[in-house]
Amino acid sequence: MKAALLTIGNEILSGDTINTNSSWISKTLKGAGCQVVCQLTIPDSKQQITKGLDQLFSQSPDLIISTGGLGPTTDDVTRESLFDYFNTKSKFDDDYWNELKIRFSRFGHDIPESNRSQALVPKAGKVFSNPIGSARGLRFEKDQVTFMALPGVPIEMKAMIKATVLPWVKEHAPVATYVQTLRTTGLPESVLIEKIDSVAKTDHGCEMGYYPSVYGVDIVLSSTHKESIYHLKNELLPILGTLVYTVGEETMEEIVVHSLIRKKQTIASAESCTGGLVGHRLTQVPGSSKVYLGGVIVYSNMAKIDLLKVKKSTLTRFGSVSEETAEEMSQEVMKQFKTSLGISVTGIAGPGGGTDNKPIGLVYAGLANANGVKTREFQFGDERKTNKLRTSQAVLNWIRLQN
Amino acid sequence: MKAALLTIGNEILSGDTINTNSSWISKTLKGAGCQVVCQLTIPDSKQQITKGLDQLFSQSPDLIISTGGLGPTTDDVTRESLFDYFNTKSKFDDDYWNELKIRFSRFGHDIPESNRSQALVPKAGKVFSNPIGSARGLRFEKDQVTFMALPGVPIEMKAMIKATVLPWVKEHAPVATYVQTLRTTGLPESVLIEKIDSVAKTDHGCEMGYYPSVYGVDIVLSSTHKESIYHLKNELLPILGTLVYTVGEETMEEIVVHSLIRKKQTIASAESCTGGLVGHRLTQVPGSSKVYLGGVIVYSNMAKIDLLKVKKSTLTRFGSVSEETAEEMSQEVMKQFKTSLGISVTGIAGPGGGTDNKPIGLVYAGLANANGVKTREFQFGDERKTNKLRTSQAVLNWIRLQN
Repeated sequence: MKAALLTIGNEILSGDTINTNSSWISKTLKGAGCQVVCQLTIPDSKQQITKGLDQLFSQSPDLIISTGGLGPTTDDVTRESLFDYFNTKSKFDDDYWNELKIRFSRFGHDIPESNRSQALVPKAGKVFSNPIGSARGLRFEKDQVTFMALPGVPIEMKAMIKATVLPWVKEHAPVATYVQTLRTTGLPESVLIEKIDSVAKTDHGCEMGYYPSVYGVDIVLSSTHKESIYHLKNELLPILGTLVYTVGEETMEEIVVHSLIRKKQTIASAESCTGGLVGHRLTQVPGSSKVYLGGVIVYSNMAKIDLLKVKKSTLTRFGSVSEETAEEMSQEVMKQFKTSLGISVTGIAGPGGGTDNKPIGLVYAGLANANGVKTREFQFGDERKTNKLRTSQAVLNWIRLQN
Repeated sequence: MKAALLTIGNEILSGDTINTNSSWISKTLKGAGCQVVCQLTIPDSKQQITKGLDQLFSQSPDLIISTGGLGPTTDDVTRESLFDYFNTKSKFDDDYWNELKIRFSRFGHDIPESNRSQALVPKAGKVFSNPIGSARGLRFEKDQVTFMALPGVPIEMKAMIKATVLPWVKEHAPVATYVQTLRTTGLPESVLIEKIDSVAKTDHGCEMGYYPSVYGVDIVLSSTHKESIYHLKNELLPILGTLVYTVGEETMEEIVVHSLIRKKQTIASAESCTGGLVGHRLTQVPGSSKVYLGGVIVYSNMAKIDLLKVKKSTLTRFGSVSEETAEEMSQEVMKQFKTSLGISVTGIAGPGGGTDNKPIGLVYAGLANANGVKTREFQFGDERKTNKLRTSQAVLNWIRLQN
């Protein structure tokens, strides 16, 4: 089953609001066996709504979903345009208007007159309920395409997709699509793809998608046959080995925290160039307080000496961005927090601070446990924020891989 | 000047990746006097790329920008489709291929053959440079429309918009649109709007947009008349007072770091519920090492006692989430780092840990300086990640407002 999405709204088009609705709808529909094949964003304008609908109908999807433009304040452009497009008159729904009045009074407000438009229903066409807000959905049929209009407020849109759209899709979709994600980190996209090229080129019956981000590359397998995904996954996993940090949707920090909980380990962080990001990511995970006891951010040399007892001679001889400093930082933070592990990072995030010997993006990390300490060197790029993110991902990944 | 955006990518259409590129481009172009009138997302398919280009060309914008599909792994659908659509043959750019080889070897990889496609250039059409990645941009002219293709990786796309697209827009836009943003924090959108309602309803000749986020509400004024913006801004600022943390695009952390640099102050952080986020945000700003010396993340009671010398009696009597604990944390961290300011946060981020007396979202912050210490209480919501972000924003804002 194929769907097309029409996003109506000046705020989306101007970039002031990020269109998270479309991705949520696409993902949700895909799980139910409905593939979004096209998404169009247009302004709140009758002419553009008409043109947009023409474009989407010309693709002959099974379903078109629009979001936006049904609130009380949007001068009713969308509702009016839709009634005209689907060639129907409207009538006023007194029952719904009374219901709205009661809802508003319950929250201590008089209902504004601007809400009246929300009680307008099409003579040829249907309304469906909004469990959360006052703007109901509209549904029309034309040229064997089902059209559903939803409000753009995410929480209302999502409730209506779940209550009305999904049941419709499940009833009408001939086959469901199954999806599985292998999340990898550590190799650039093209190198990763070369690695699995021989398997990717076999007749595995799945679609494969590669989605790079600053954290790594997600490999998404999808198919209408659950078994095809199962087989392809089992071909890929031995080749990819530890590059895959999860099969599923979990984040790296979730993987790390859950694995530390299972292993009954605790950890503390000593951060220089990441400035607290490692701690921040670990504490994004509910329950992280079981394993993450805290850390020290030593953004100055003085702090490295005073708070983490890094030897002055180490700093003088090897510099603050060095294996030796990373070693001392991780061991000391482990000791201070009495944890089973200590992780440290020290590096040059940029844009300043690089030299010929130690360029921007150079990072040393240390990982200490009761048996001693290991260090690693990383070379990232030129951009400060990216360097911080990549560093945090690399050290979290290292924690995941330690035994 | 009008622009249309073509987003090419299965990962966007499937919802696996949120289309943040489009909103960024729209905002950025708007500031330069170019309005995005339509945005279309289509799959990596030659047929759909052709159809999509036809649709966008039929709107006769001045500029069409595509993003996505120029990576090494996308089977070259986009590049090939574009060369065909604009009716040009390709040639192989040996110089660029050699440059790519060197770049890969610097990061310790052999260049995969799949990257060869990135050295293909059109015979009729231009390439423009990518300061960050290997996929260069493509530019074609047709029917008095300029078309530019960019890669979809946000950091590369942004660098190329700044280096190539924006200068082109500025050169060709007939009337510039002036935009000014008043960034506020501390009041919900509806209350903020009510506050400035009387001014907003005057005949000020500007468009006003309200853009709420977890950090606050941005009020965006735009007009083709610079003076209208100037006057409206000067009407609004006295009403809004300290709610406005910047007129411009700076982030809260930039404002804070730059103001501390000006005041020659230094700061250290003691974080519990935010887990390092305050330090992370401060260290996002280049030059922050001048003022931010570091911090301690005390995610456990033991760490509060051992590392920040919070009195056991304080924890027993008032609890770890209390004014008293926040006070001691901020004073001690200031002492340890020898800074002029110490900021502390302790709270219940959720989802666990709430009680009747101390619900989820309750946060205490402390701000110490040589003259003593002040505390503040905040009550945020139920969601862990949002609570962390709102807490960080509230304390950064407090640092901004201190004298």
